[in-house]
Amino acid sequence: MNYKLMGRFQAMLFGAIAVFMVPAMILCFADGDKTAGLSFLYVLLGCAAVAGGLFLFCKDAAQGFFAKEGFVCVGVAWILISIISALPLFISGCVPTYVDALFEMASGFSTTGASVIADVESLPRGILYWRSFSHWLGGMGILVFLLAVIPSEGKKQGFAMHLMRAETPGPSVGKLVPKIKKTASILYATYVILTVINFIFLLFGMPAFEALCTAMGTAGTGGFGVKNDSIAGYGDYVQIVTTVFMFLFSINFGCYYLVLIGKFKNVLKDEELRVFLFIVFGSIAMITANLLISDKGYTSFGETLKDAAFQVASIVSTTGYSTADFNLWPAFSKAVLLFLMVIGACAGSTGGGLKCSRLLILVKGVARNFKQALHPQKVATIRINNKTVEEKTVENTNAYFVAYMSIIVVSFLLISLDKFVNGDPTTAFTAVLACFNNIGPGLAGVGPTANFSGFSAVSKIIFVFDMLAGRLEIYPILVLFSKRVWKRA
Amino acid sequence: MNYKLMGRFQAMLFGAIAVFMVPAMILCFADGDKTAGLSFLYVLLGCAAVAGGLFLFCKDAAQGFFAKEGFVCVGVAWILISIISALPLFISGCVPTYVDALFEMASGFSTTGASVIADVESLPRGILYWRSFSHWLGGMGILVFLLAVIPSEGKKQGFAMHLMRAETPGPSVGKLVPKIKKTASILYATYVILTVINFIFLLFGMPAFEALCTAMGTAGTGGFGVKNDSIAGYGDYVQIVTTVFMFLFSINFGCYYLVLIGKFKNVLKDEELRVFLFIVFGSIAMITANLLISDKGYTSFGETLKDAAFQVASIVSTTGYSTADFNLWPAFSKAVLLFLMVIGACAGSTGGGLKCSRLLILVKGVARNFKQALHPQKVATIRINNKTVEEKTVENTNAYFVAYMSIIVVSFLLISLDKFVNGDPTTAFTAVLACFNNIGPGLAGVGPTANFSGFSAVSKIIFVFDMLAGRLEIYPILVLFSKRVWKRA
Repeated sequence: MNYKLMGRFQAMLFGAIAVFMVPAMILCFADGDKTAGLSFLYVLLGCAAVAGGLFLFCKDAAQGFFAKEGFVCVGVAWILISIISALPLFISGCVPTYVDALFEMASGFSTTGASVIADVESLPRGILYWRSFSHWLGGMGILVFLLAVIPSEGKKQGFAMHLMRAETPGPSVGKLVPKIKKTASILYATYVILTVINFIFLLFGMPAFEALCTAMGTAGTGGFGVKNDSIAGYGDYVQIVTTVFMFLFSINFGCYYLVLIGKFKNVLKDEELRVFLFIVFGSIAMITANLLISDKGYTSFGETLKDAAFQVASIVSTTGYSTADFNLWPAFSKAVLLFLMVIGACAGSTGGGLKCSRLLILVKGVARNFKQALHPQKVATIRINNKTVEEKTVENTNAYFVAYMSIIVVSFLLISLDKFVNGDPTTAFTAVLACFNNIGPGLAGVGPTANFSGFSAVSKIIFVFDMLAGRLEIYPILVLFSKRVWKRA
Repeated sequence: MNYKLMGRFQAMLFGAIAVFMVPAMILCFADGDKTAGLSFLYVLLGCAAVAGGLFLFCKDAAQGFFAKEGFVCVGVAWILISIISALPLFISGCVPTYVDALFEMASGFSTTGASVIADVESLPRGILYWRSFSHWLGGMGILVFLLAVIPSEGKKQGFAMHLMRAETPGPSVGKLVPKIKKTASILYATYVILTVINFIFLLFGMPAFEALCTAMGTAGTGGFGVKNDSIAGYGDYVQIVTTVFMFLFSINFGCYYLVLIGKFKNVLKDEELRVFLFIVFGSIAMITANLLISDKGYTSFGETLKDAAFQVASIVSTTGYSTADFNLWPAFSKAVLLFLMVIGACAGSTGGGLKCSRLLILVKGVARNFKQALHPQKVATIRINNKTVEEKTVENTNAYFVAYMSIIVVSFLLISLDKFVNGDPTTAFTAVLACFNNIGPGLAGVGPTANFSGFSAVSKIIFVFDMLAGRLEIYPILVLFSKRVWKRA
C-alpha cells in the first residue's frame, strides 16, 4: 500500500469537504440558526486543518498507484466523508445520536435517501441543503469530481484510471474519450447541465430553495425530500417533471455525449437502453392495469398512470421519492417494484441497483450456456451492441451477481435479529434491498410513509455498510477488510 | 430429434408406471375401496396398452442419442408421469379437479410435498401409498431407475450418459465407477438399503403402513405426510429418527459408496460435506438460541433443540415434514430457514435446492474474482477437494444460478397476481421458493399448517412447472419450449 500517495488524495478530500460545507454554513447563519452554523464552521475548520497537515506530511509521496490502491483509496474516502459529514448533524442536535447522523449522511452520499428523520420540515435549511448536496456529489462520484476539477493529479501514472474504475458503477468503465481526466470532465459537465435544466423546470412549481434541493436529489438519484410527504404535496407539474428527470438520470451518461457529438443512431440502437426502456414501459403498463382493476381506489386512468410512472421512475432510478403509499398497492404491483429495486438503472448513470447492462450480460450468459448444453461442440461469444463482450467482463459480472446476492442474504439474516422487524420478513428483506440498491423506501415497516429510525444502532451500521457497498459496487468496501491489502509496499 | 428412440424409452416408462400402480391398486381393493381400486386399474391397463403400442411402433429406432435427446427424453418423461399418475386421484374423486391432482402428483414425483389436500387422513391407503411412492421414485430419478434395472438399454451409445446427466442433480455427475449403468445400480442399491433401514427404525414407533409411507417420503426428501399434522403427532422417537434420516438422505450418495469401499478419510475431507455440516449445525445452534430467548414459549433446551434440528433437517434436505409451526417463529429463525430453502442439500443426494457444491463453487468464484481485481496479473483456478474445478463447470454453475434466480423472479411476479396471496409478498415469494426448491411448506399463507388448495388453477400450473424445473435443474424442462429441438434429425 502506497500510504503517502493515498494520504495526499485524502488531503484533497478533506479540503474539498471544507469548501463544500461553506454554502450550508452560510445558509444556517443567514437563517439565524447559530447552533447549526457553528457546527458546520467547527467541522469545516477541522477539515481544513487536517487537509493542510496531511498534505505537508505526504508531500514526498512515491509513484506507484495500482488497482489495489484505487479500491482502498475510494473505500476510505467514502467512509471518511460519511463520518465527517455526519458531524454537523450531530453537533447541531438535529439528530439524537451520532449513529443516526452517520446513517443519514451515508444514505445521502450513497444516494440511498433512506432517512431516520420523520419531521424533515423542522430541520434548518443549511442541513436540508447539506443532505441534498450529498446526493448530488455522491451521484456522479466524489473522486471523479476531484479528478475532473484538480489539474495536476490526473496526470499521475495509473491514478485516474484506477480511481475511476473503482468509483464508477457498471460492469466496465466506458471511456468516452481516450483520456480518463477528459472523460471525467465531460461526465461532470453533462451532469451539471442536466441538473440546472431540472432546477429551472422545477422553479415554475416550487420555491427556489426547494427546487434546488429537489433537483440535486433527483440528479443524484438520492431521494431525500424537503417535505415530510416527499413529492406528494406538490402539484401534477412538479410530479411529472420529476418523473421525467428521474428517468433521464438513470440513463447512461455516455448516451448524452453520443447525442451531443451527433451519433444519435448509436443511442437508439443501444441494447442496454432498449432493455431499460422495455422494463420501464412494461412496468408502468402492468402496474397501471393492476391498480385500475384493484379495489385500491384508483379509477381515473390519468391519475393512475401518473402515480404508476412516478413510482416506477423513482424505484428503477433508485431515487426513492414517493407520491403514493405503494405499500398499500396490490401484491403484483409490489412484486414489480421489488423486481425494479433489484435491477436498477443503466450502468454509467447516477442510479444504483444491479444495472441493466449486467442483467443483459447475465441473461445472455444463460442463453449461451443453454445452447452449449444442447450442442456441446459449439463455441459462442456473448455480443452486445454488435461487439463481443470480453470473457473477463462476463466472469466479473457473474462474480458480482454472486457477491451481490451474498451480501443481501447475510444482511437479511443480521437485520432479522432486530426487534423492529417484528417477525415480518418483508420489512427486513426490503430494508436491505432498499439500502443496498441505494433506493430508500422499501415495503411493510420501511414503506414510503415510514422511516429507519426504529432500527437498533447495530442494524444502522449494517445498513451503512450496505449503502456504501451498494454505491461502490462492493469491492472498494470489501477490500478494506483484507489484511494483506494494508501491507506497506 | 430421434423420435423413435425416444418413443421406445417412453414405452418403457409407460410399462413401468403400469407395474408401479399394482401395489396401490391391490391396497385399494384390499381395503374394500372399489372406486379407487378401479381408477388405478383403468389407468394401469391404459398405460400397458400405450406401452405395447409404442414399443411395437418404435422397434426399428435408429441409433444416435445426444445431449439434446437426453434432456428432451427426461423432460417429457417427467411431465408424462405427472400427468398419468394424477389420473387415479382425479377419477377416484379424491381431489376435486384434475389440476389439483396434477399439482399433487407433480409435487410427489418432484419430491416437493406441497399438497392441496387438507384432510389426508380421509384418503384411501392406496392413494396415500401412491403419493409416498412417487416421492421415493422421484427422489433418485425415474430414468436412472430404468437404467439400473433394464438390462439392454444401458448399452446404447451415449444413451445412459446423457439420461443420467439430464436427470441427476448437481453441477457434475459423479461417476462412482467407469460404467454409468453400474453407477446407477450402485446408487439405487444404496438408496434401497437406506430406505429399508429407515423403515425398520420407524416400525418401533408407528404402524407398518405409516412407517412405509414415512420412510419413502423421507428417502425421496419429499414430505407428504399420512397424518394431517405431518410428524407432529408422533412421539420423540419417530421425530428423532426422521431428523437423522432426513440428514442422511441429503448427503451425496457417493459418500456412502466411499465408506463401503473403505475410503472413509476421503469422506471426512469432502469439502461439500464439510460446508453442509457447517451450515446445518450452525443453523440448528442459531435457531435454538433464537427460540430460547424469544417469547414463543420455548423454555426447555432439549425440546427446543429437537424442534430446531427437525425443522432444519426438514428444510435443508428439502423434505418439508413439520413438527412445529415455524411460521410463528421469530424473524431471525424464519430468515435462517429461508436461507436453507435456497441452499438445499448436497449434490448427488435426493434433496433439492441450489446444492452445497454449487454454493461452494459460486463463493470460491467470487473470492478468485476479488483477488484478481486487486492483482490483475495473477491467474488462479478454483480448487475443491484438492482438484481443479474445470472452468466449464464454473461457467455452468454461474449460468445455473442466474437461470435459477430468473425463474424465481418470474414465478414470483406471476404468483403475485393470484388473489390467494392477498397482498402479502411473503406468501407469494415463499410459495415459489417452496415449490421450486422442492420443499413443500413456505411461510405466511403457505406455512406448515396451510396448504396450496387456495391458489387458482393457473397458479397451480405455474407451480407444476416450478416443481419439475426445480427437480430436473431447469434445462430438461426449458428445452421443451425450444422450437429447434423438435426438428426431425
